[in-house]
Amino acid sequence: MKKDEVRVYGPATVSNVGPGFDLLGFALEEPGDEMIIRRNGSRSLRLVDESGCSLPLDPGINVAAIAATAILSELGIREGFDMIFTRKITPGSGVGSSAASCVAAVVGINEVLGNPFETEALIPYAMEGEKMASGATHADNIAPALLGGMTLIRSYDPLDIKHIPYPSDLWCAIVHPALEIRTLESRKQIPRQVTLKHALQQCGNLAGLVAGLATADYSLISRSICDVLAEPYRTHQLPDYQLLKEAALNSGSLGTGLSGSGPAVFSLCRGEEMAKMVGKVMKKHFTDRETGAVVYVSRISQAGCRIL
Amino acid sequence: MKKDEVRVYGPATVSNVGPGFDLLGFALEEPGDEMIIRRNGSRSLRLVDESGCSLPLDPGINVAAIAATAILSELGIREGFDMIFTRKITPGSGVGSSAASCVAAVVGINEVLGNPFETEALIPYAMEGEKMASGATHADNIAPALLGGMTLIRSYDPLDIKHIPYPSDLWCAIVHPALEIRTLESRKQIPRQVTLKHALQQCGNLAGLVAGLATADYSLISRSICDVLAEPYRTHQLPDYQLLKEAALNSGSLGTGLSGSGPAVFSLCRGEEMAKMVGKVMKKHFTDRETGAVVYVSRISQAGCRIL
Repeated sequence: MKKDEVRVYGPATVSNVGPGFDLLGFALEEPGDEMIIRRNGSRSLRLVDESGCSLPLDPGINVAAIAATAILSELGIREGFDMIFTRKITPGSGVGSSAASCVAAVVGINEVLGNPFETEALIPYAMEGEKMASGATHADNIAPALLGGMTLIRSYDPLDIKHIPYPSDLWCAIVHPALEIRTLESRKQIPRQVTLKHALQQCGNLAGLVAGLATADYSLISRSICDVLAEPYRTHQLPDYQLLKEAALNSGSLGTGLSGSGPAVFSLCRGEEMAKMVGKVMKKHFTDRETGAVVYVSRISQAGCRIL
Repeated sequence: MKKDEVRVYGPATVSNVGPGFDLLGFALEEPGDEMIIRRNGSRSLRLVDESGCSLPLDPGINVAAIAATAILSELGIREGFDMIFTRKITPGSGVGSSAASCVAAVVGINEVLGNPFETEALIPYAMEGEKMASGATHADNIAPALLGGMTLIRSYDPLDIKHIPYPSDLWCAIVHPALEIRTLESRKQIPRQVTLKHALQQCGNLAGLVAGLATADYSLISRSICDVLAEPYRTHQLPDYQLLKEAALNSGSLGTGLSGSGPAVFSLCRGEEMAKMVGKVMKKHFTDRETGAVVYVSRISQAGCRIL
């Protein structure tokens, strides 16, 4: 059934989960993006920012508009839409702000058009927007933002996504310090050649993490959250990152790592209370260093992007 | 309880399972090694070959004796033992002949001595023997030969092993062609530097394989059995390897790859009938090329090394 207007929610996500650089991500219950998609009777996209985030309103550089354009082009639709951003995850935070927008855009357009696409088939269009944000067509924010849960990108070519089972009391604490790291530049710092030893360490840890999640082996989850390929090249901008990790682990985090390319840092925790405690400890790390920080505490969300 | 003599069975194993180079292995019900370990009242190891395999009987170069010596040295025991090899997997086949011997040796010695070690703690001693066979201290034959099942080496330093759940109707067909590949030389051909892209492909496939096994997702298991790091450098000695793979996959194999460093080739299959059929097809590939071949068909074995 076609519609004139929908309101969509796209959740924040953590990507690059530990050893899952470019491959593993999960959805959060909060924060998230909200967007209204409305037919406007014209032939063009019109962007309206009611989020207070100073979003770019030129459809050629707004990631959500790029994603929307990709799906409209594919369908050969020349109709125009208003895209009204009513709530927005802080851009550049590391919790998948661009993926939330891209996913909300394609789900909203698809819904207005009567769902010509299956949900999973929307991923490539959402990735078109994400590509502009990160300089690479990675999907480990897009997939969980769209589908919910914990998702593994088994392969990019062809795109192959698997929901990984995880224990129901797995929670996440995220601290977002008031620091800016550009995904595009951050990605360039990762070497294109790696040692076989590091490659095998990453393989072992990612497989261990997936096995730990699937069998609710918390100790294995904890031992597996270690990234030797990307994190070492990305944390120098965070003050005393190793101390932050130690503080989180000592206060009960199962594992701590960069969320996406940072500056947000996630800690997986067993249960809400533990996650709240770890969140406080991580926030204190930054406030002690005169850097403001926001904390989110959320269960891993089964639900992905959805019509409200 | 100490004993004077034990008879031990060490099963064959498949290592380097698909994308699990150095990390993933599983045990077979058959073939296997049998060995008698007997106190001999002297102060030295005496090796007796009743297997017909022309095994080296100098304890300094026999892998099982090296493993036995490692555990005896650790315990400071100067007592002598006879090691009588009564049944032996063909050495150099690629189904963990040396691992079966090493594991049987350490389990046998441990049993005779009244089990001073927990089973998993025997791994480093068994690896000492394996090191001589392959030139590297890899454990993906040793771990399943000792513990049974499907084992992931999450990490080598520290050694960290996880049993991966797998569907109960997972069977394996293995073809062992009459070709010789030396593990030591085979290993040297693998580049020490890899591209980040290949490293991530391997990570995705191994994590996908583990997720597929743990959730009985046969299609995912099938899509994940792909090794971009080791296999491309190891198959040139096998005639028409790509045709062999295609023939196996076309006849119902979930995934086909080198067993260890070859020349044996494994195919994972759903059910015994399918495994038997695939085994026949793989054997025919070699006999059509005037190369003799032996086929084994076995369930993935829950049981590892055991006292008979």
